[in-house]
Amino acid sequence: VIVVLSGGVGAARLLRALRTELKPSDVTAIVNVGDDVTMHGLVICPDLDTITYTLAGLNNEELGWGIVGESWRVMDELAALGGDTWFRLGDRDLATHLFRTQQLHAGATKSQVTAALAQARGISERLLPATDDTIATMIATVDGEISFQEYFVARRHDVAVTGVRVEGAAQSLPAPGVLSAIAAAQRIIIAPSNPMLSIDPILAVPGVRDVLRARRDDVVAVSPLIGGHALKGPAERIMVELGHEATAVGVARYYRELISTMVIDEVDAAVAPQIDLLGVRSVVTTTVMSNPEHARQLAKEVLA
Amino acid sequence: VIVVLSGGVGAARLLRALRTELKPSDVTAIVNVGDDVTMHGLVICPDLDTITYTLAGLNNEELGWGIVGESWRVMDELAALGGDTWFRLGDRDLATHLFRTQQLHAGATKSQVTAALAQARGISERLLPATDDTIATMIATVDGEISFQEYFVARRHDVAVTGVRVEGAAQSLPAPGVLSAIAAAQRIIIAPSNPMLSIDPILAVPGVRDVLRARRDDVVAVSPLIGGHALKGPAERIMVELGHEATAVGVARYYRELISTMVIDEVDAAVAPQIDLLGVRSVVTTTVMSNPEHARQLAKEVLA
Repeated sequence: VIVVLSGGVGAARLLRALRTELKPSDVTAIVNVGDDVTMHGLVICPDLDTITYTLAGLNNEELGWGIVGESWRVMDELAALGGDTWFRLGDRDLATHLFRTQQLHAGATKSQVTAALAQARGISERLLPATDDTIATMIATVDGEISFQEYFVARRHDVAVTGVRVEGAAQSLPAPGVLSAIAAAQRIIIAPSNPMLSIDPILAVPGVRDVLRARRDDVVAVSPLIGGHALKGPAERIMVELGHEATAVGVARYYRELISTMVIDEVDAAVAPQIDLLGVRSVVTTTVMSNPEHARQLAKEVLA
Repeated sequence: VIVVLSGGVGAARLLRALRTELKPSDVTAIVNVGDDVTMHGLVICPDLDTITYTLAGLNNEELGWGIVGESWRVMDELAALGGDTWFRLGDRDLATHLFRTQQLHAGATKSQVTAALAQARGISERLLPATDDTIATMIATVDGEISFQEYFVARRHDVAVTGVRVEGAAQSLPAPGVLSAIAAAQRIIIAPSNPMLSIDPILAVPGVRDVLRARRDDVVAVSPLIGGHALKGPAERIMVELGHEATAVGVARYYRELISTMVIDEVDAAVAPQIDLLGVRSVVTTTVMSNPEHARQLAKEVLA
C-alpha cells in the first residue's frame, strides 16, 4: 500500500494520477482536516471533499473546487435573505455536508462518514482524515488571528501571515488506521500541497510526525513549488512570510527530517544539487499534471 | 393589537385572512415551536416557516408545506448518497434553515432570527416563537414515544397516540413579548390549529396559560373541527384517542377555561347550544377559508 499525505487540489490530482500505476485499493490518503469548518451548522471538510469529487470525476475544474455542473439555488435564496454567502456551497455539494452532518450528529466519526461518502461515490482508495477530532488551522496575520477559511476564502489569502497554529491538535488523536498505515506503507508520498497550511496540520496530530520520521527512507515529497511559484494558492507567499526560501530547495529543507527523496520539476533541475546537499535525493521530472501523460510520468517517478 | 396563538397551515390562513380587516402591523402571532427539529444539523421551525411563507405569498398550496415552485437538487443528491430524505427540504426552503442555523450559532435568539426572516420576506405582522428555548413535542404511541416529526411525517400520523408531552417546556421561558402581547391585546384568537399538538405546546410554556386565563373574556377560538373532521392533519383522531369528543363541542370543552367565545362552522350550527351550555358563547359562520370571501367573513367574525 502507498500512503499519500494530502491537502486538496494538488493531492487530488496526484491521487488520480496514481491510478495509472496502481490499483485504487492499494492507495491510502491521509487527508488534512485543519481547514474543516462548520458553516450554517453544516460540517464541511474541503480537502476530503475535493479529493472525493476529483476521484469520482465530479470535480469542477473551472472553479477549482466543488462539483461540475453545479447549481446554486440554495445560495441564491440565501443571498436574497441577506445570509452569509461568502463561502459558496452548491446544491449538490450541500448534500455532502447534510449527509456528513447528519451522520456525525448520529454518532458516526469523521472517518466513518468519509468512508461512507467515498463508497457512495464509487471510490476505492482508502481516505482517512488525519484525525476524527476537531482541529482548526488558525492563521496569525498582520490584522490578527483568523480562521483558515476566513484567510483563504474571505480574504483570498491576500493578507500577510505572521504564523500558523493548529488549534486542538495537541489534544487530538490520529484517526484509526493513520499511524499503522504510515508504519506499514511500502512508500509514503507527501503530495504537492501547501507545506504550512495543508501538510503541517496532518503532522501536528500527535504520533504522525514520529512515525513518519521513522519511515524517512521511504518518504518522498513532491514539491508544490515550481520555479519558485505555486500552481494554486499562497504557498510561495506564505513561505517567504514565515522566513523560508520559496523554492524547491526551501521545501526540501522544510521537510528534510521527514523525507529521503524529493521530486522536483524540470524547470528546477538546476537546484537539484542543492537539494542533494541537504541529504535529500532529488528526482527531476514534470510535476505539472496538466495532461494525462505528464500525470502518468509523475506517478511513475514517485513510485520508482 | 390582535394576538393569534398559531400552529401551522390553519393559523397561516387565518393570519392571511386577517389582512382583509387589519393592518398587518396590528397583528402578533405567537407560534408553536414544539415541532421544531434539527435535521442534518439545521434548525427547522415548520410552523414559523409555514406562516412566513404563507404571508409572503410563497406557500406551496399543492404540497401543503414549503415554497411554491420549489426545486429539489439537494434532496435528489442526498438520496443518491443514501442519506435521510424522509423529511423533504426543498432548495429554497433550505436557505431559510441555513440562515436560521447560522444566526443561532452566532448567538441570535429564535425570536431575533424569526424577525429577521419575516423582514427579509417583507412581512409586517409580528411573529413570535412561543419560547426561545428548545422544547420538543413528544408523542407517546402504541409503538413507544417518538418525536413529533417522526409521528407526523415519517409515520404520517398513522399510529395510535396514547399521550403527548412537551419536553423542556417546564424549564422554558416565554420569548420576549409573548406574555405582554397577550396581556395587552385587544383580542386573542386561538387559530384553528390542532389543540393537543399545536396549541398545547404554546400553553405549556410557563406563564402563557395563566395570562391567557386572565384574558378569558377577550379570547376567541376558531374550531379546527368541522362536522367532526379536521381539514388537514390528525386532530380528529388524536382527540378521540386521548379521550375527548372529536367535535366542535369537544374543542370548546377542551378550551373552556381559556376562552369566552368559539367560532364554529355553519355545518355545526346544531351543536351551538351545547357550546353555550359550557359557558362559551358560540358564533356560527363559515370557517373554511377556501376562498377570499369566506376568509374575509371569518376574519370579520373573529374580530366582531
